[in-house]
Amino acid sequence: MAADIAEQPQVMAGLIDNGQSDIAEVAAAIAERRPRSIVFTARGTSDHAALYGAYLSEIRLGIPAGLASPSVVTVYDSQPNWKDSLVVAVSQSGGSPDLTKVLNAARESGAMTLAVTNNPNSPLAAAAEYHINVSAGHERAVAATKTYTAELLALFLLFEGMRSETGALDSSDSELLAQLPTLASDVLADRTAADLASRYRFAERFVTTGRGYAYPTARETALKLMETSYLPSLAFSGADLLHGPLAMTDPGVPVLAVVGSGPGGNAMYDVLSRLEDQRADIVVVGPKDLPGQTARMTTPAIDERFAAFLDILPLQQLALHLALQRGENPDAPRGLKKVTETV
Amino acid sequence: MAADIAEQPQVMAGLIDNGQSDIAEVAAAIAERRPRSIVFTARGTSDHAALYGAYLSEIRLGIPAGLASPSVVTVYDSQPNWKDSLVVAVSQSGGSPDLTKVLNAARESGAMTLAVTNNPNSPLAAAAEYHINVSAGHERAVAATKTYTAELLALFLLFEGMRSETGALDSSDSELLAQLPTLASDVLADRTAADLASRYRFAERFVTTGRGYAYPTARETALKLMETSYLPSLAFSGADLLHGPLAMTDPGVPVLAVVGSGPGGNAMYDVLSRLEDQRADIVVVGPKDLPGQTARMTTPAIDERFAAFLDILPLQQLALHLALQRGENPDAPRGLKKVTETV
Repeated sequence: MAADIAEQPQVMAGLIDNGQSDIAEVAAAIAERRPRSIVFTARGTSDHAALYGAYLSEIRLGIPAGLASPSVVTVYDSQPNWKDSLVVAVSQSGGSPDLTKVLNAARESGAMTLAVTNNPNSPLAAAAEYHINVSAGHERAVAATKTYTAELLALFLLFEGMRSETGALDSSDSELLAQLPTLASDVLADRTAADLASRYRFAERFVTTGRGYAYPTARETALKLMETSYLPSLAFSGADLLHGPLAMTDPGVPVLAVVGSGPGGNAMYDVLSRLEDQRADIVVVGPKDLPGQTARMTTPAIDERFAAFLDILPLQQLALHLALQRGENPDAPRGLKKVTETV
Repeated sequence: MAADIAEQPQVMAGLIDNGQSDIAEVAAAIAERRPRSIVFTARGTSDHAALYGAYLSEIRLGIPAGLASPSVVTVYDSQPNWKDSLVVAVSQSGGSPDLTKVLNAARESGAMTLAVTNNPNSPLAAAAEYHINVSAGHERAVAATKTYTAELLALFLLFEGMRSETGALDSSDSELLAQLPTLASDVLADRTAADLASRYRFAERFVTTGRGYAYPTARETALKLMETSYLPSLAFSGADLLHGPLAMTDPGVPVLAVVGSGPGGNAMYDVLSRLEDQRADIVVVGPKDLPGQTARMTTPAIDERFAAFLDILPLQQLALHLALQRGENPDAPRGLKKVTETV
């Protein structure tokens, strides 16, 4: 897992340098067909990448987007009418039969279908009309890390490419993207996550929170903590936290709050002040010290679409180091396999 | 909270007897306009009712459905193109400004808009083109119970009414519906939930799970446990549980599994056997004893669309009794207000 995490700058550089033109081609082809809506289907970590994709679709393209429940197709044998929609399945392995069934049903109903996977030879890639290879290389640990950031980046390239209609990026986005591998290396070089793992060695659970583009980061962090350290971790959008679960936060529950420098981050200030009232122990992930924080894991002040690639990095490290400190084996969590064949 | 819970059979009967014709009218009017997709927006408990509505839309109507993130509109100031879609806001109070903003944005983009609330004089009801009053009466406790089942029932009447295009129900559904208040009274009369509250008095957390129509029940149960007993509770669809979080279950974590007698329930058998391998302590909610269970809260063997109105009842009671046993005040959870004004 440590090796997978460390490889991320290199995987990002590889996708930027070598994967971009293929993705641009897919983006241009789909943009020309003007999908009316975008439906994602995914599970686990890939579901969080899909959620990021849904924010991009709605905010950047103005195309309504949502996450489909595979069970509608696989358990209830129904066939929603996805005509003129783009149905996107995201899966590192491309080996989960339920997602393949959803793509087949989508094709039958007249949808454009796209598989985003780390395996171009997978059944899912074969089932889809379009395929994007996230090119993350073999992931050794069961807990997904580099395939997650690669999926995020691939979806970014896809939707920003659809925005321009030609597949090309804005020049300002291209410039930021060129800096991404270096920024990722810098974030990974910081030792704060390892130090904080000591502080939270005996924490019994976590709450994670963020809004907008940072919400998938909160969700993915919670899953990593659960998978590798068996720590119950609850992820809430900042707004949902105020509707009920806030009652549950107390000084004994560390809160990992992703607070970037854009609109999503700004919308977290009210949430943080309510958490402070509850005397929560708050770790901020972001560029700025904030009132009430116990500690901060530093990530750059950058457009929130890009922050999603970086904010997760110290949180992956935190999950890894917590597992090690707790005497767990993060590479082989109990009860899990790399490919989960749900139906 | 006890009084709100106990009133549910009566609220159901009221909505069936007096609310049905108004909802049928809305259903017929919307069906005639043939929405291409259905987008829900809601928070907290109402979000779980919306999720139930999304399953109904896709399975019963074949209309793609999804849950929108209000932040796309309220935080990022974007305007997805919801033309020809039905945008449904669900909120007991109808007082949350963010949902009103989403409905306004939806109307501007050419969507049909519907508010489902317990307050016909609310800003949300005023903002929407159509309104459905769930008619649950004044809810005293902060934790929503009777407004939840009333929202579920209202959404059932709406979507089944859209299915027939006239607003009327299938005769078999009408017959089942006529029995619903009695079935609900029977379930509430069972003392198992109160007894189990003793057994789980010292549990430190819960996992809840279900698939399809039972997944909203699992989500709502987790929220109730968090709101009233401050017990961290993780809800997973049966399939997602196998993708990572299964590692986290151990004999110290009670699992509340909703296992009905339809396709969603059948799809849980594999999940239960994996949980049994992990030596989890399993409480089944449903009509049938299952291998590996510690206890069962009995609910009728009934079409899963109806089971959603009934399975939640003993789970609400469990949340209430756990709070009381733990010395908490379920009527006034710390840090919460009845109307949460997120933006």
